Amino acid sequence: MKNFQILLWVFIIFSSCNEKKETVVVADGSQHPNLILTTESVSEIKSQLGTIPVFDKTLTKAKKEVDAAIKKGIDVPVPKDMAGGYTHTQHKLNYATMQKAGVLFQLVDDEKYAIYIRDMLLEYAKMFPTLPRHPQTRSYARGKFFWQCLNDANWLVYTSQAYDCIYSWLPEEQTKYLNKTLFRPYADFLSIETPQYFNRVHNHSTWGSVAVGMIGLVMDDDELVNRALYGLKSDNIDPNAKDNDGGFIKDKEGKAGFLANLDSPFSPDGFYTEGPYYQRYAMYPFLIFAEALQNKKPALKIFEYKNGVLIKAVDALLNLTDADGEFFPLNDGQKGMSYYTSSLVSAVNIAYYYGTQNPELLSVAKKQNQVQLDASGLSVAIGLKENKEKPFIKKSMELRDGAKGDEGGIGILRYQKATETLALVMKYSGQGLSHGHYDKLSFSMYENGDEVLQDYGLSRFVNVEQKNGGGYLKENKSFAKQTIAHNTVVQNETSHFNFDFATGSKNHSEKYVFDVSNSAFQLVSAKEANAYPGTVMHRTLIMIKDKALEKPFVIDINKIQANKKHQYDLPFYYFGQIVATNFKYNSPKTLATLGTKNGYQHLWKEAVGNAGSESIQFTWLDNRRFYSITSATHKDDEIILARIGANDPKFNLRKDPAIIIRKKDTQNTTYASIIESHGTYDPMKEVANNAYSNFSKIEILSDTSTYTSIKIYFESGKSKILILSNLESSKDKKHSINVDDQKYTWVGSYYYK
Amino acid sequence: MKNFQILLWVFIIFSSCNEKKETVVVADGSQHPNLILTTESVSEIKSQLGTIPVFDKTLTKAKKEVDAAIKKGIDVPVPKDMAGGYTHTQHKLNYATMQKAGVLFQLVDDEKYAIYIRDMLLEYAKMFPTLPRHPQTRSYARGKFFWQCLNDANWLVYTSQAYDCIYSWLPEEQTKYLNKTLFRPYADFLSIETPQYFNRVHNHSTWGSVAVGMIGLVMDDDELVNRALYGLKSDNIDPNAKDNDGGFIKDKEGKAGFLANLDSPFSPDGFYTEGPYYQRYAMYPFLIFAEALQNKKPALKIFEYKNGVLIKAVDALLNLTDADGEFFPLNDGQKGMSYYTSSLVSAVNIAYYYGTQNPELLSVAKKQNQVQLDASGLSVAIGLKENKEKPFIKKSMELRDGAKGDEGGIGILRYQKATETLALVMKYSGQGLSHGHYDKLSFSMYENGDEVLQDYGLSRFVNVEQKNGGGYLKENKSFAKQTIAHNTVVQNETSHFNFDFATGSKNHSEKYVFDVSNSAFQLVSAKEANAYPGTVMHRTLIMIKDKALEKPFVIDINKIQANKKHQYDLPFYYFGQIVATNFKYNSPKTLATLGTKNGYQHLWKEAVGNAGSESIQFTWLDNRRFYSITSATHKDDEIILARIGANDPKFNLRKDPAIIIRKKDTQNTTYASIIESHGTYDPMKEVANNAYSNFSKIEILSDTSTYTSIKIYFESGKSKILILSNLESSKDKKHSINVDDQKYTWVGSYYYK
Repeated sequence: MKNFQILLWVFIIFSSCNEKKETVVVADGSQHPNLILTTESVSEIKSQLGTIPVFDKTLTKAKKEVDAAIKKGIDVPVPKDMAGGYTHTQHKLNYATMQKAGVLFQLVDDEKYAIYIRDMLLEYAKMFPTLPRHPQTRSYARGKFFWQCLNDANWLVYTSQAYDCIYSWLPEEQTKYLNKTLFRPYADFLSIETPQYFNRVHNHSTWGSVAVGMIGLVMDDDELVNRALYGLKSDNIDPNAKDNDGGFIKDKEGKAGFLANLDSPFSPDGFYTEGPYYQRYAMYPFLIFAEALQNKKPALKIFEYKNGVLIKAVDALLNLTDADGEFFPLNDGQKGMSYYTSSLVSAVNIAYYYGTQNPELLSVAKKQNQVQLDASGLSVAIGLKENKEKPFIKKSMELRDGAKGDEGGIGILRYQKATETLALVMKYSGQGLSHGHYDKLSFSMYENGDEVLQDYGLSRFVNVEQKNGGGYLKENKSFAKQTIAHNTVVQNETSHFNFDFATGSKNHSEKYVFDVSNSAFQLVSAKEANAYPGTVMHRTLIMIKDKALEKPFVIDINKIQANKKHQYDLPFYYFGQIVATNFKYNSPKTLATLGTKNGYQHLWKEAVGNAGSESIQFTWLDNRRFYSITSATHKDDEIILARIGANDPKFNLRKDPAIIIRKKDTQNTTYASIIESHGTYDPMKEVANNAYSNFSKIEILSDTSTYTSIKIYFESGKSKILILSNLESSKDKKHSINVDDQKYTWVGSYYYK
Repeated sequence: MKNFQILLWVFIIFSSCNEKKETVVVADGSQHPNLILTTESVSEIKSQLGTIPVFDKTLTKAKKEVDAAIKKGIDVPVPKDMAGGYTHTQHKLNYATMQKAGVLFQLVDDEKYAIYIRDMLLEYAKMFPTLPRHPQTRSYARGKFFWQCLNDANWLVYTSQAYDCIYSWLPEEQTKYLNKTLFRPYADFLSIETPQYFNRVHNHSTWGSVAVGMIGLVMDDDELVNRALYGLKSDNIDPNAKDNDGGFIKDKEGKAGFLANLDSPFSPDGFYTEGPYYQRYAMYPFLIFAEALQNKKPALKIFEYKNGVLIKAVDALLNLTDADGEFFPLNDGQKGMSYYTSSLVSAVNIAYYYGTQNPELLSVAKKQNQVQLDASGLSVAIGLKENKEKPFIKKSMELRDGAKGDEGGIGILRYQKATETLALVMKYSGQGLSHGHYDKLSFSMYENGDEVLQDYGLSRFVNVEQKNGGGYLKENKSFAKQTIAHNTVVQNETSHFNFDFATGSKNHSEKYVFDVSNSAFQLVSAKEANAYPGTVMHRTLIMIKDKALEKPFVIDINKIQANKKHQYDLPFYYFGQIVATNFKYNSPKTLATLGTKNGYQHLWKEAVGNAGSESIQFTWLDNRRFYSITSATHKDDEIILARIGANDPKFNLRKDPAIIIRKKDTQNTTYASIIESHGTYDPMKEVANNAYSNFSKIEILSDTSTYTSIKIYFESGKSKILILSNLESSKDKKHSINVDDQKYTWVGSYYYK
């Protein structure tokens, strides 16, 4: 804030030389705006307008949108529709337009924007007092303007900003009227009257507490601000009550409020336990309220809270994206959502300004090509104008999960050479609240911006009204969340934790090793001992760059130790066309499902065969690239070629394929596979380059509870030995074992030569 | 050519001022090079090098490639492999590298390129005399260096150019040796010894005759040149013999040779009856030989042959592409092939230089970002340097089929607004030789570069060795060529002409109307009376831009008149996810095929329902856009939701979906549908815009042999009447009929109001 005061003086000194007529406002905390925009930042921005390209462009765009809306006239319909429907969409448009109109009123000095906001608020105030809860009854917490309180909270978060911008412009009797008729009752409605919505640790409640807090700050209503920060003292919520997504409403420790929502879903690394899709959604209220608190309650030092977790969270989120900036769809995540979304524009700007002015963030902002229209956006626009940006390099990294960082995590391995990138994401985190999937030790793989082995993500067409009102589809539960929908081991055709949310929520996987110190041999390894009682699963994924090969390959070791015999399935969800297999299979004349429950009922069995040898190979073509999986097998392992889409009467699922390696009647076993991107196809030149795998075979040499040794055979004739220490992960530990009458000695958790 | 002489003098005058040392060669037709490069054009190009960016860049790239190949050393392996295999790929690489090395020898004055070509040719000459036909026996015309003569002809077309470039540099005894040992016998092998390959009207034989003609021109061997131009006088080919693709070898009229291949597959509009994919393939030999003939036999005036059909063909081909420049995959066409391919670089350059220097071609060349390294490429590079290019606007157009242009054709309707484009391609041409599909009156639709309703194209992974040696897959015949694989009507689950090639080849559809004079109402209409004996099919596709709607919609009228009752199926091959249907259907618990033969055995029946009303609607989401088909139905019409992929044991087919409208036990009937792109989905903003169709219903008001009248109902409440005159297509004809007690009077083939 000090910057601004200095700049303000500079501005005052130089303003006489400036031909533009400007109103110089003396800094005054009680004068509105003081929430996101402040009287100081408004002055500063206005002094720079016309010289800060990306800010100017964003403002011009906002002006165009708002001017068009004003021309169209005010429309505050009686609430009626589900998401995607007319009244839903109109109320969303209203708050978004009001927020922008507020900014425009402050920055371009035209009263029409204030009038527009005022008139619209008066319409809402007229409607509100007699408005019952929304007629659609689907939500566990029905709203007023929308079918669920969540959207009403969105409304209030945005509208608070608009209101703040015209607060000092409105006659006092009008603010009193709006406060009393609309805003205070609305805040009470979202909190006291709907405790099951407000008093939780959940992204819903983050929006709820921020909505209450923002309007509290605008009205200088400290009761509301405290309610927002610390939650309701009592709520009478049934500890077994669940929301629409099946999540528990009551927090384990009974915590609630904004600070509790910062404490517990965020790990110390800034990972948000629900996953990146919901983190993206929650970042806006977290950060915009933090900005408001920093402006109005600087003593709270909110950006320093929990070792600066809010700024770390932005960095974590940017790292949870593929090469195109799209978020990894861990847990419930809609594909296509990316850091180009407006909440990430806000997040990047706030993280830059309130953080350390990290120049790497500027390069993301440059791609976003728009800024938040406030002091943070101004600082980004100036940074870009001064060409301060540096490339945002996504590194291999581990993001721990859990409030204390001790509940597993996410391991990301990356490789980059010029514009070619390969990324692998392994999930060994906690359950992830109600949006969590039952996918312990699962992983997905990306090449550039393309999915190679996919995480299915959620089953939902967000805001497409025809698809169940834009809400979650029942296939989200019956398929997308089930273990078989993921690239991880399923025991006895049953999902992890028997698909029980309470059990899943009590457990998490354990990191074993995360070591990316050697960029040519990056390793992530984790164990899961609770998903199936009596069974320990230990997966290790290694990204190896061999000098003889153009791209890195991945070794995937899935070691399973059980106290009795089971059936195991390991699926790989690939895309595209099968090019070759070295195993035989039969394609049935009619298609049946792979099973009857736990997601298996949604898979068609397109072909079934036996491995028939000790190593199978499967090559496919997707996105003009050739990929292969080479996997160590037993001769009688079953190989299933499956496709999603059975028992899908509304065609809600994508008909994507998978190869599943099935081991029947097996107690202890280890899956060992090589996964590689090895060639390209050019349909214009009609040339296939390196269409064949670089490997002839992978072999498990020995496998005990202490060590697993593997041999991989390159097509070139050479071979390598990999030995993993299964119980001792220390970097300094000396190991020595005999494999095939040969002695191997090394230090650390693995041997590879 | 005059340009060059003038430029040559200019060059000589100014060359003394130029520090570069240049060899000025006096024009001399007997002096090599004189085939594609000439002594004059070499001088001219050398005088411009360094000042013609795109030419310079292409040359630098070629130099880099050839230098790398020279470094690697000469490799002329004993022929062994199928397409995609090592020896195949190496021999392909050899001719491509030699051709470039020849150009480099002429343009950069380094003897190493000549030495490289010479040494490689000597290797080939050593191997050739004792080389049997290729060991792979799959081809009807096995080659020497390759499994089929076609690839050997490729070799000779490129190698002739390399040979020409070093001909004058080689000692006479070496040219004599190579002519006698390698080239003349190779030309005889491809013609006299393999008449079933050489003496045809087919793209194979175009390559064959051009190979023989090119080497004939290099060796000044007029016997070979005449053989190339006019074919073998006698060939003893069995008139019933067929090639690997099932095409007849012997031409109907017994014609053969280069000129016959220009006469008959090309229509006067430059449409090549095999379709754009093979036209693209044939354009290179057609045009490169034409260029050579123009250089060495200018009296032939080859570019004026058949009213300048060669230049027209380039224009036709560029118009047979989607917004990304990818060819419509009519008949056997591999998707992804586009005008960025090198044969189109050559085609565009030659068409520019030997045509009218059309500046629109320069904008295509600019996108291609490379040129042919000869006089034509020089002229394009200079044109681009001088910024002469104009946008290549693809217009709605008809391309007639047949040597005389009287065998039906292809109708293309297009709409463009800023960067948004919609294109529709209707096929009412002849069979298209052996690569033709049985898809009379079929159509496909594109939005921007995306397929909306697809033409499946071929079933083949060209040059992917693992997929049947890169050759055609059996599913090409069993599915891709069959009628049910296309968006057109199938009678009694049997393909057009009962899938009989001889019958299909005797027939073609008839254009009824092609009228694009009103850009807001573009109409293409054609009839097919022979595909099913006793049945006349008449399809009309209209692209209408209504002012109230953002994009045009398409009306599709399929009128069928038969002499008895049949079953009719009309498929629409869409992509993506189903969003909504207004009809009910059942999804079976196990999947069965839709039929047992004629392509039906490859379709899974994912759901079946009845229309249940007089108008059905089907909405889907693909590429972030919403599409709908609204179709007039009888209540008991069957609606089948199908998916490709049954009986596909090698996973050769793409698992793409279709909706099929089935009318059972029906004699005369009319399908009437509205097809529209009406909305967009933004997964980042999570906003669905216009997710609902703009139409509520389409109704057939009356339908007789003379008139068909349709009413379409907009969601806005308005409606429009469309009346088609079915028998009288004249623009001037006055019509007057009563529909629903109302009188309609108009002039021309349709009424729409």
